[in-house]
Amino acid sequence: MKTYNLAVIPGDGIGVHVTDAAMEVLDVAGAKFGFEMAKTSFPWSCEYYLETGAMMPADGIETLRGFDAIYLGAVGWPETVPDSVSLHGLLLPIRKAFNQYANIRPHRLLPGIEGPLRATGFDILCIRENTEGEYSGAGGRVHQGRENEVATEVAIFTRAGVERILRFGFEQARARRGHLTSVTKSNAQKYSMVFWDEMTDLVAKDYPDVTVSHMHIDAMAAKMVMAPQDLDVIVASNLFGDILTDLGAAIQGGLGFAASANICPDRSGPSMFEPVHGSAPDIAGQNIANPIAAIWSAAQMLEHLGEAAASEAVMAALEATTRRGVGTRPGASSTDEITAAVKTALSA
Amino acid sequence: MKTYNLAVIPGDGIGVHVTDAAMEVLDVAGAKFGFEMAKTSFPWSCEYYLETGAMMPADGIETLRGFDAIYLGAVGWPETVPDSVSLHGLLLPIRKAFNQYANIRPHRLLPGIEGPLRATGFDILCIRENTEGEYSGAGGRVHQGRENEVATEVAIFTRAGVERILRFGFEQARARRGHLTSVTKSNAQKYSMVFWDEMTDLVAKDYPDVTVSHMHIDAMAAKMVMAPQDLDVIVASNLFGDILTDLGAAIQGGLGFAASANICPDRSGPSMFEPVHGSAPDIAGQNIANPIAAIWSAAQMLEHLGEAAASEAVMAALEATTRRGVGTRPGASSTDEITAAVKTALSA
Ligand SMILES: CC(C)[C@H](C(=O)O)[C@@H](O)C(=O)O
Ligand SMILES: CC(C)[C@H](C(=O)O)[C@@H](O)C(=O)O
Repeated sequence: MKTYNLAVIPGDGIGVHVTDAAMEVLDVAGAKFGFEMAKTSFPWSCEYYLETGAMMPADGIETLRGFDAIYLGAVGWPETVPDSVSLHGLLLPIRKAFNQYANIRPHRLLPGIEGPLRATGFDILCIRENTEGEYSGAGGRVHQGRENEVATEVAIFTRAGVERILRFGFEQARARRGHLTSVTKSNAQKYSMVFWDEMTDLVAKDYPDVTVSHMHIDAMAAKMVMAPQDLDVIVASNLFGDILTDLGAAIQGGLGFAASANICPDRSGPSMFEPVHGSAPDIAGQNIANPIAAIWSAAQMLEHLGEAAASEAVMAALEATTRRGVGTRPGASSTDEITAAVKTALSA
Repeated sequence: MKTYNLAVIPGDGIGVHVTDAAMEVLDVAGAKFGFEMAKTSFPWSCEYYLETGAMMPADGIETLRGFDAIYLGAVGWPETVPDSVSLHGLLLPIRKAFNQYANIRPHRLLPGIEGPLRATGFDILCIRENTEGEYSGAGGRVHQGRENEVATEVAIFTRAGVERILRFGFEQARARRGHLTSVTKSNAQKYSMVFWDEMTDLVAKDYPDVTVSHMHIDAMAAKMVMAPQDLDVIVASNLFGDILTDLGAAIQGGLGFAASANICPDRSGPSMFEPVHGSAPDIAGQNIANPIAAIWSAAQMLEHLGEAAASEAVMAALEATTRRGVGTRPGASSTDEITAAVKTALSA
């Protein structure tokens, strides 16, 4: 039997509950499709930080390196640990350390879900750059606390970094409906975003079969609400992709439905799978978190591991579940009920 | 009769048409409420750039300084002049030169308009920082065109700049429903946005009557689609405000409805009024641009000039027009028809 070594980081808040749900579904999928998930769980979280002073041990990255994949629930508990500490201590370094430069986030309505838009038939794949750009962590503060304080944040875009995410996006577009929209803000950010536009045009030459559009981030935000059905693959920087994928989550019915794969395309390190939503301290521990995004992310992981049939079966089980009206409205079904329904559909 | 000296910059594309519309409505308002708009028109635009090599003359800013207000249609014609040139040569320098640090953008549905959302009863006032932050124009490119090229964009936030926009936002919140949401991304941008969060908490102490929320830009983008009715005043940085106001335009039915005032609160220079939409080269010259955003912006200008009754009358005329179904759907009424309907309603 094929065995995959999976590092599991449940994290904080509802991250823990939805990770449990996703792991249960993975076990059912394994039993059905003949593989085993050998899971090693790591307690790295804000609680861990309060105990040890770090979000993960000094050798955390080295520990993760040997795994076939990483599954992460959600990180953050702002009441006790500032997000700027918790995220920069765990989530963001993992994305960067393993060159998980392609963050893949699909946005479409599962059956039975009434989203906030009147529009329905959209199917968007957002490819977010995941390792540099506006979240490089560069910048500083001078004259802190004084009248003349200045804070800077430096967005850093490398040619290699921009080129590889664009190529990745073009490959995805080629495998889908053949259209790619590159999102920048080159009318107001004349260094980084003009550079990104140029790189888009350059890489596009290698993909004559893909039609390319340029759109500014503000116009794209409006587009996703006004006419999401016109969009196919979107490629965007770290920040812009972050914003657009929460918006994508919203139009697909909410954060409870938005899956995410942090992919290291050259497989020099493990990829990481996590729902788009956060730890949601306000609803933690109440058995009401929607595990659908987490389970969808697990399906992305199965696909990445080469278990395409299992991945498709999990997606079909999710769709069967929402089609029946389970998990489609906030609070109507518990986390456990939704998970059970997906497992039942999957074993059927 | 009171006379206001107005600098008019129609700009490019549909900017010209909607400016004409707004000026006609202003004349009707003046006749009714007893003031005169003495308009001086400036041809500064991409066409002007192609003729002269600059978007405006070297003394353009000095020329504008003496006016009571500036009205701008839209700037940009990317086919002939890169946006990074046209915007940095005209729109952005005006905002900065006259300390128009508060960009006020209201988002609500006019009567008769069916927006893209199922939700309807929202009334949001977005206050966008307008002079620094992510659009400071700082940054650079090294090793341009080479494998090791790096492009940077430096977001610069000054204490004075952040404090004044927050105070402005709190004043607005106090005059409305008493709630302010400060939008940052302090979980991933640990210098600039952590600073903004701290400043929010500091300024909030002076406004105990205003309730304050912090929200990340990604969550806010989702919120504006999922539950816009929960929002009152939003305060955001230059980039975040830019994105959220296009999104705001989308939920109010489209860019044709989104007004914008670039305010210099201390009145040390003229303020500038312009619709949120751009020059829309694809529909220029066809008499189909919706002038409602432009006319709404003119109403904001009247209010700023102290003509509150005239401003309210223009808004009432806009509402009467859309309530009748004129201008509510793209292409159904021409620019001229909508303008005529507003003028008729205003003179009635
Ligand atoms: C938690 C936060 C740092 C993270 C991000 O912005 O990358 C999250 O919003 C996401 O989209 O994965
Ligand atoms: C044209 C562009 C530079 C401008 C901006 O981003 O400020 C526009 O999008 C706006 O919102 O006024």
